[in-house]
Amino acid sequence: MAIRLSTRDADFAERFDALLAAKREVAEDVDAAVAAILEDVRVRGDAALVDHSRRFDRIDLETTGIRVTAEEIDAAEGDCDPETLQALAFARDRIEAHHRRQMPANETYHDPIGVQLGHRWTAVDSVGLYVPGGTAAYPSSVLMNAAPAKVAGVGRVAMVVPSPDGKLSPLVLAAAKLAGVDEVFRIGGAQAIGALAYGTATVRPVAKIVGPGNAFVAAAKRRVFGTVGIDMIAGPSEVLVIADHTGNPDWIAADLLAQAEHDVAAQSLLITSDPSLADAVEAAVERQLALLPRREIASASWRDFGAIIVVDDIADAPALADRIAAEHLEIIAEDADGLSEQVRHAGAIFLGPHTPEAIGDYVGGSNHVLPTARTARFASGLGVLDFLKRTSILRCGPEQLRALGAAAMRLGEAEGLHGHARSVAIRMN
Amino acid sequence: MAIRLSTRDADFAERFDALLAAKREVAEDVDAAVAAILEDVRVRGDAALVDHSRRFDRIDLETTGIRVTAEEIDAAEGDCDPETLQALAFARDRIEAHHRRQMPANETYHDPIGVQLGHRWTAVDSVGLYVPGGTAAYPSSVLMNAAPAKVAGVGRVAMVVPSPDGKLSPLVLAAAKLAGVDEVFRIGGAQAIGALAYGTATVRPVAKIVGPGNAFVAAAKRRVFGTVGIDMIAGPSEVLVIADHTGNPDWIAADLLAQAEHDVAAQSLLITSDPSLADAVEAAVERQLALLPRREIASASWRDFGAIIVVDDIADAPALADRIAAEHLEIIAEDADGLSEQVRHAGAIFLGPHTPEAIGDYVGGSNHVLPTARTARFASGLGVLDFLKRTSILRCGPEQLRALGAAAMRLGEAEGLHGHARSVAIRMN
Repeated sequence: MAIRLSTRDADFAERFDALLAAKREVAEDVDAAVAAILEDVRVRGDAALVDHSRRFDRIDLETTGIRVTAEEIDAAEGDCDPETLQALAFARDRIEAHHRRQMPANETYHDPIGVQLGHRWTAVDSVGLYVPGGTAAYPSSVLMNAAPAKVAGVGRVAMVVPSPDGKLSPLVLAAAKLAGVDEVFRIGGAQAIGALAYGTATVRPVAKIVGPGNAFVAAAKRRVFGTVGIDMIAGPSEVLVIADHTGNPDWIAADLLAQAEHDVAAQSLLITSDPSLADAVEAAVERQLALLPRREIASASWRDFGAIIVVDDIADAPALADRIAAEHLEIIAEDADGLSEQVRHAGAIFLGPHTPEAIGDYVGGSNHVLPTARTARFASGLGVLDFLKRTSILRCGPEQLRALGAAAMRLGEAEGLHGHARSVAIRMN
Repeated sequence: MAIRLSTRDADFAERFDALLAAKREVAEDVDAAVAAILEDVRVRGDAALVDHSRRFDRIDLETTGIRVTAEEIDAAEGDCDPETLQALAFARDRIEAHHRRQMPANETYHDPIGVQLGHRWTAVDSVGLYVPGGTAAYPSSVLMNAAPAKVAGVGRVAMVVPSPDGKLSPLVLAAAKLAGVDEVFRIGGAQAIGALAYGTATVRPVAKIVGPGNAFVAAAKRRVFGTVGIDMIAGPSEVLVIADHTGNPDWIAADLLAQAEHDVAAQSLLITSDPSLADAVEAAVERQLALLPRREIASASWRDFGAIIVVDDIADAPALADRIAAEHLEIIAEDADGLSEQVRHAGAIFLGPHTPEAIGDYVGGSNHVLPTARTARFASGLGVLDFLKRTSILRCGPEQLRALGAAAMRLGEAEGLHGHARSVAIRMN
């Protein structure tokens, strides 16, 4: 049973603050271990990968090879259920089509005094994609990370995935092939991040690393940031449903549980203006929990981090939603559009009763890699822009230099950078 | 005297690799000290700011106050040279005008089966701007960081700047006022980053922190990343000039020295197809060095990290430029546009003989906060997008859910997320 709050409660502000502040993850301090592993990979390369994979994944890379061969990937594909492969290809096509629309345009223009300004977008040359092993190996995440990179024009996408006890998910390998991943390596953990950042004899270094991972992976990404680019550090997933009296309690309960089943640290929240809907959703959650294979995870998440917040007026919901800054926000209400427009901080918004978040997780076309843990206050979901960079372009002729030169020289002198001023003056005399 | 390379040298590949690998900064290990300071600020707030500012900046914040008052800022403005203020206002206007063009458009569309997809851009609510104290306190950098934030629509820009021995640069305060900075605090170092990230009684927390700083500031930004957004970690600045026989050696030498005067760790490089230009530039650098107030810094930079690379054909320059991935790239050549189009990795390109980098540093309009240390391979210069985030929007009706539902359920089941599949199924029955 989740907690219940009402904006009418005398202690609502405090309890809402406590909900926002709840630590859903224990920050493991793995920094020293990670620093040592990264340094070992930087110095010893493949030999370090072999050692650490033996220790962490109980696998002998000297026997299996570090790289997963094209034959292995084809064989894995053959092991997959054909209908699931079809669904993956359908998802890939929709993700690619949507992300193609995100490609930004280059620009060139001349300002009123004739200075040419502009910028040009180019793709990152090479990207490393981290894919977790074990139960969190999601083929859909391979598509969501690799497809935008390929749409952006990244020439080389190198995927790393740990292979505990020698096992790899056939669907993950099939998704890599579908998404156009160029190289797959059976390595994980901080050692895989080190290999991608510094390069080894087998793994050429990349320019940017994306994808979720455990505490070791997150700490390693934080450390190599600067040597390579990284995406955000992903935390446990969350959903917020805003619903008025039009909400179907069974549907809403199913959506809350779809989030809760991810992880005991996942969070499912409901804000509603209808107290009877609050009761009905709560009852439906309990009923549906019994039907879920992952009910132990889902019930722990719902018990520890779930919450139902009753507001007097549904118009009060957007302000609370902004405080929560949820990764996923469903709005099921008569005026879903109006409410949506009021919200400033959310990773993705799912509008109306027929858009369960699970559609966006797989086949909506938009990206399911979204900012968690209130980072939607400053971060965006993954997209094509994450795999492009912008070069600015400036050109003056003699006239423009004359028009701008005096101010530039004045500022150079004021900052004590006389060489800056001289580089302008020498052209004006 | 800088080193000289030629692509005809038998050992060119090795020497070029060594040039790329040269460490221009000693990485200070301040991580433990920074972790302790951040934790102290998180727990003790303003009291920690007072203690650390006393220790590092020799200033008593209990006397001066933590916040710089509007009266102090007005007084500082009064102390500035009016022509310099005018130049700053001119720069601000040009920066704002250019950055307004970077505002991205929201999008909504319906795909062929009627699914509504789109995204909406919103500004980050609050941004912290770190400004270094002492000799690296550049008013132009205040404009370059704050103006795009304001153009993006950031409601609150809070600037922190250390005040060693109680001193603040009047021009920095004046630039803050010109750029629309909302709050200024006389704090620096890791403690200022902690205050912006966690908040104290006096400093409300922000959502994102930008701006350059020393090793303590960089380590602190790396640590608070996730709690807040951060921009890139800036390293020492660099310029690469590509010039054919049309290049004016005196002008090119002045540009190389404008870069070198920043810092002994700055880097100035020239690639030319004209050996006699290489000699003439080298001689001009030596001559002009004598004229520079900062000649000690500039000559150390040029001696330790400068290089002239002679190529057989100017058409060979872009490939080398991509390996270097320079923060600033000047192209002075008959076919500057053609060469520019070949380059993929550069922070900013300055085209033609009349566009010294110093114009872009101050009044070109484009941003001078650019990716250093080869990070142009994956990063862009600062811009309006750094202060916005994108919320994706998805809407299905009953028909669209029917069209997408089967594939979504199939993938949910394949990933072992039966609750995901149920949230779709419950709406389709």
